[in-house]
Amino acid sequence: MTAPARLADIAAQAGVSEATVSRVLNGKPGVAATTRQSVLAALDVLGYERPVRLRRSSAGLVGLITPELENPIFPALAQVIGQALTRQGYTPVLATQTPGGSTEDELTGMLVDRGVAGIIFVSGLHADTSADTGRYERLTARGVPYVLVDGYAPGVRAPFISPDDRAAMRLAVTHLAALGHTRIGLAVGPKRFVPVLRKIEGFARALKDQLGLDPRVVEEELVQHSLFTLEGGQAAASALLERGCTALVCASDMMALGAVRAVRQRGLEVPDDVSVVGFDDSPLIAFTDPPLTTVRKPVPAMGQAAVRTLLEEIGGTPAPHSEFVFMPELVVRGSTASGPSSRA
Amino acid sequence: MTAPARLADIAAQAGVSEATVSRVLNGKPGVAATTRQSVLAALDVLGYERPVRLRRSSAGLVGLITPELENPIFPALAQVIGQALTRQGYTPVLATQTPGGSTEDELTGMLVDRGVAGIIFVSGLHADTSADTGRYERLTARGVPYVLVDGYAPGVRAPFISPDDRAAMRLAVTHLAALGHTRIGLAVGPKRFVPVLRKIEGFARALKDQLGLDPRVVEEELVQHSLFTLEGGQAAASALLERGCTALVCASDMMALGAVRAVRQRGLEVPDDVSVVGFDDSPLIAFTDPPLTTVRKPVPAMGQAAVRTLLEEIGGTPAPHSEFVFMPELVVRGSTASGPSSRA
Repeated sequence: MTAPARLADIAAQAGVSEATVSRVLNGKPGVAATTRQSVLAALDVLGYERPVRLRRSSAGLVGLITPELENPIFPALAQVIGQALTRQGYTPVLATQTPGGSTEDELTGMLVDRGVAGIIFVSGLHADTSADTGRYERLTARGVPYVLVDGYAPGVRAPFISPDDRAAMRLAVTHLAALGHTRIGLAVGPKRFVPVLRKIEGFARALKDQLGLDPRVVEEELVQHSLFTLEGGQAAASALLERGCTALVCASDMMALGAVRAVRQRGLEVPDDVSVVGFDDSPLIAFTDPPLTTVRKPVPAMGQAAVRTLLEEIGGTPAPHSEFVFMPELVVRGSTASGPSSRA
Repeated sequence: MTAPARLADIAAQAGVSEATVSRVLNGKPGVAATTRQSVLAALDVLGYERPVRLRRSSAGLVGLITPELENPIFPALAQVIGQALTRQGYTPVLATQTPGGSTEDELTGMLVDRGVAGIIFVSGLHADTSADTGRYERLTARGVPYVLVDGYAPGVRAPFISPDDRAAMRLAVTHLAALGHTRIGLAVGPKRFVPVLRKIEGFARALKDQLGLDPRVVEEELVQHSLFTLEGGQAAASALLERGCTALVCASDMMALGAVRAVRQRGLEVPDDVSVVGFDDSPLIAFTDPPLTTVRKPVPAMGQAAVRTLLEEIGGTPAPHSEFVFMPELVVRGSTASGPSSRA
């Protein structure tokens, strides 16, 4: 229960003794079903949440499929989603893909076999433009409700929950341009992913608006694709530094940490010589060397929205099957500083 | 499957057509049960892993209860345990406690109601010497197998999986004493927790062996209790710095990051003025400022052992109900340096 329910209030509302209320709340036997129902009804009327145990009949398992738990953004999202589900009486089943092990399809099959009430996919194949969306249509055909987080596949009729990747890039570019940087690079993952395409679009448009650069030139010279890992960020950053960038925007904090490493390998300093901006944010990012300036993904809002829309789907009152886009925010720490032009 | 199974090989081994093998592997109907069995047997004989879907009949849900997912050590353990369970055809249910929300007992009740095959408790009430162990006896009485990670409660008849907390402190103290530190403090969580008591014991014994200090004096002057958080580490470190410590051993990396903050608040530097050693280690800890020297908890080995012993319990061939203790290792990075006596 969120607030300590006062036994006396509940007993008065239900017209039973406090001892009976106590027996019901603690799941003790020896209470008639009708009495039990009136106690639970009193709880509802008074606005108290039912104890988890007493909600189970109405709820079920809900699957949560994530790529991994090593990037701290995934456990952060899993924590928010798991807690929101538990509060509603659902049991979260966390299924994590493994390199060379279980794929998204295998995990989905396992969850469906378990009779899950619904599935939340985080950064799944719905974010991969090269993947077949038939798997989601088949899930719909089997009557399994689902919500897709951090990706978008036109044609799939389900709720989508995403951060505003384009706005994220605008926040980063505006900050760096204000610091006087004119040569800004973007280190991103493979081109087939929706969040990557959106970040490139937002990045190119922001550079056009702020510095008058031609979007085609930006895509050719200032965007570097790589893997979504620290080593991938390091490789992409090295290529961008070769091309004279004094500021690097990275598609994840892990990539940004790799970018910091690439800067240092060339005998340069962050942020004195090169500024670095990450994306995601999680508790430890404030303690990195240097503390990363980053665009914070709105994880609590996204996680709660994913659960809320899934429960609407499960309840048969689905929200419109569109995309719900959440605004990120720029967190300025110690990895960004004045660029060469403002210093000169 | 780990390797792409060659249909032709399986078909030859099972004495059926490749089309039949394909139907079985993809879970299609229209295959006789005996034929299906021979295809699965062929997979086993040839050393291929069965697709997850075809393993489900033998497995069930397994609950994993953790205090939270914000300290990165818990998602790291959850990932190892989840993957090991999935490989064995079990479905991991991750249940996370919430401040002011679901308690360990509520989550246990929910999991038992779901008919879990077993439960793995991580840093649960079994680690709290002030908690009633009756809850575990009742679980045993209900026939639910379980394994207890990172804690120990004498009298509870279940397998325990722990890091060697005493050895961890010896590793840290030996490293700091070798660097010339003679005034070494320990920042730990509340005294009622088993891992805390063990760390104090190991810490005091190591200081006696290496520097000839009286264990009672050590406990009074050089051990500071606080909360298991960054702010807790900061508070404990401040108190220890007041008492002249030049090196701080912390019971978690989060506490160690708080200790670094406390050192800097006094206008001092880590490691030039004060050395700091953490405990746990996780991927981002190598990137903190400064990179933390820490005692690495053997997470992969502990997670796999937790799953293995739980499966033995579930299978009715329990391992001896004792404690399995795993050796940590010291990872030296940039938060430790020579102490005043070796410099003088």
